[in-house]
Amino acid sequence: MPTTREEALHLHRVKQGKLESKLKVPVRNERDLSLAYSPGVAEPCKEIFDNPKSVFDYTMKGNMVGVVSDGSAVLGLGNIGPHAALPVMEGKAVLFKSFAGVDAFPVCLATSDIDQIVQTVKLMEPNFGGINLEDIAAPNCFIIEERLKKETNIPVFHDDQHGTAIVTLAGLINALKLSGKSLSEIKVVANGAGSAGIAIIHLLRRMGVRDIILCDSKGAIYEGRKQGMNEVKEEVAKVTNKDNKQGSLAEVIEGTDVFIGVSVEGALTKEMVESMNDNPMIFPMANPMPEIMPEDAKAAGASVVGTGRSDFPNQINNVLAFPGIFRGALDVNATHINEEMKTAAVYAIADLIKDEELHADYVIPGPFDTRVAPAVAAAVAKTAMETGVARKNADPEEVKKRTQEMSQIED
Amino acid sequence: MPTTREEALHLHRVKQGKLESKLKVPVRNERDLSLAYSPGVAEPCKEIFDNPKSVFDYTMKGNMVGVVSDGSAVLGLGNIGPHAALPVMEGKAVLFKSFAGVDAFPVCLATSDIDQIVQTVKLMEPNFGGINLEDIAAPNCFIIEERLKKETNIPVFHDDQHGTAIVTLAGLINALKLSGKSLSEIKVVANGAGSAGIAIIHLLRRMGVRDIILCDSKGAIYEGRKQGMNEVKEEVAKVTNKDNKQGSLAEVIEGTDVFIGVSVEGALTKEMVESMNDNPMIFPMANPMPEIMPEDAKAAGASVVGTGRSDFPNQINNVLAFPGIFRGALDVNATHINEEMKTAAVYAIADLIKDEELHADYVIPGPFDTRVAPAVAAAVAKTAMETGVARKNADPEEVKKRTQEMSQIED
Repeated sequence: MPTTREEALHLHRVKQGKLESKLKVPVRNERDLSLAYSPGVAEPCKEIFDNPKSVFDYTMKGNMVGVVSDGSAVLGLGNIGPHAALPVMEGKAVLFKSFAGVDAFPVCLATSDIDQIVQTVKLMEPNFGGINLEDIAAPNCFIIEERLKKETNIPVFHDDQHGTAIVTLAGLINALKLSGKSLSEIKVVANGAGSAGIAIIHLLRRMGVRDIILCDSKGAIYEGRKQGMNEVKEEVAKVTNKDNKQGSLAEVIEGTDVFIGVSVEGALTKEMVESMNDNPMIFPMANPMPEIMPEDAKAAGASVVGTGRSDFPNQINNVLAFPGIFRGALDVNATHINEEMKTAAVYAIADLIKDEELHADYVIPGPFDTRVAPAVAAAVAKTAMETGVARKNADPEEVKKRTQEMSQIED
Repeated sequence: MPTTREEALHLHRVKQGKLESKLKVPVRNERDLSLAYSPGVAEPCKEIFDNPKSVFDYTMKGNMVGVVSDGSAVLGLGNIGPHAALPVMEGKAVLFKSFAGVDAFPVCLATSDIDQIVQTVKLMEPNFGGINLEDIAAPNCFIIEERLKKETNIPVFHDDQHGTAIVTLAGLINALKLSGKSLSEIKVVANGAGSAGIAIIHLLRRMGVRDIILCDSKGAIYEGRKQGMNEVKEEVAKVTNKDNKQGSLAEVIEGTDVFIGVSVEGALTKEMVESMNDNPMIFPMANPMPEIMPEDAKAAGASVVGTGRSDFPNQINNVLAFPGIFRGALDVNATHINEEMKTAAVYAIADLIKDEELHADYVIPGPFDTRVAPAVAAAVAKTAMETGVARKNADPEEVKKRTQEMSQIED
């Protein structure tokens, strides 16, 4: 059932947005007031002053994520600024809450200056247990994330990068099971060198893929390329494209096994798919129109096709990752979301589909599969404890159960 | 029923603080998702991009107040920093919601630098329809408020100053009705030159009081005083104490009609009260222990006594003012909370007590009087429209009705 512009505007207008604040404890009378405010509130204040770590226990901080954006790269809309980006950040906060019981609050910032964004988030850190960066244009997003990871004591996660990479890898892992190939033997071409493309490259490498070429609008990225490079692409050039291939996507895609698109409508043709190895796996994730339509990819020989769209099979949707990742990180009071936790999330998502259920049109769980966030949260919490970034312990089974209870979605 | 330390700690710990986020619209399934998030969310984004004012209609901004503090002057606790201050700011947000349906979010900042605070609030402005400054030490609070009023386009209100001043004035006006005296003929001594004391002086003057002396710990503030002055006190010296009296509180209180205390326990003695004019009005509001206990003030001749405490009559409680003031300001999308709106709030609170109900122990409504926030909101909205700071119109009777509906308190 497609939705209309009028319906979307009405939904946002009827209650003045999508997010409100809610009391965890009632304040109806004098006694409530004296406990939740003066004079009772002085007790947790003193406790936190004496034992700073207890702020995670006595306040909202322990369950609150800041959704930080400057509105510079919003969905398909581009640089629309912080006010026009607010509906998206509110929406993100709504997803955090409905999928995994994580409280979240929009932090739309009236600046795109890297230093100002970093400084503002650092000064706001007391209020949050984690920071989700959202819709910030490359390459600023890379610099901001790296700096905040070093300069704060709470997890910082740029969802457009890592959320997309995690869910893509989950789909790829399951597609590989069908093909019988392994991560270490496949050849991958990715198209699009924005935040998602770069993060996908790094996660592919970390998980064992050795043969990768990243293309942008100027073709393959290789060491020594002069045009359209930046610091991040230079790094990619160093660790990918080992034969230093040059040329357009059409030229370098020949003989590869996997296409991953985070670029633009129509970037992949049937001819290109036909030039790949047999039964290629195709992930054209441009939104709202993919790099190639699934039926065309299939007609050209694709074994598995995954897009960003809900009206085709195998939707690669970030909502499978970020709610559970933050749920798990918050539940063990993690200082970081490290690479091991991201990999754990990949496998938690992929492994939900049993071998006997797996088929070409079902390599990734649906966004409303209620098993996903609990499984991701448990795996992330467990891995945080194992890798030494957890400030407190939590039983992964308990994390899973609580996540199930807090979820508001329907299968 | 007094509350214990254990009860207060338990209340704050059991649910990890007091505030959470809540969805105004459900996200349970694909269709909900496509309206509240991608692709539907692009519609309000585009609408706001084309018509920036509509951000107040399509997002949470229109009903969301930032509760900004650096934790430098928290309740009776002093400079405890932004983390330990968080329970108070969460509590304040809880009061905004329960008394007047205003959404609010803590903005506890990890800096006490004036420029950094101003800059951070300005960068955060896209998310908020108003800013409530809280528990920021003097004189920084004055500078921060003045700058933010000039440099933002939303109402900025330092509650420790203006909330206290408004409720004190409401109590004083009703006390005067009992005494038969008028604002223009009384002599007032105030003790305590912090944020509340300064604001009370200015509101007294604005409302017609002509004879005022402000004291601090060094006694009367007068033009030419050398010790313990600052810019704000210099200004006060210029416009008060017209006879340039010098000396201690005990010396200058003689022959006055009203004492207003925002200082420390025990600052006012029975002897001082006895030296005042007949039937003086005494507002010893130091917390938790007043400048003089009500029974001592009465024994020394006081006609009316109002304190900050809920266990004595005539509690001067800010909660009578700030929820309704922001409710009214938000409902007409005000750019400022101006002096006329503050005065309107004073009379809205005072006038709720009818002449026939008025007596020495009932000059101010109780904090859980459900008539207060609706009356204040309606008066503030009306005055905002009349004084040209409203960006949209609202029927005051409708504002009143909605405020009643949104309130969660019990009489």
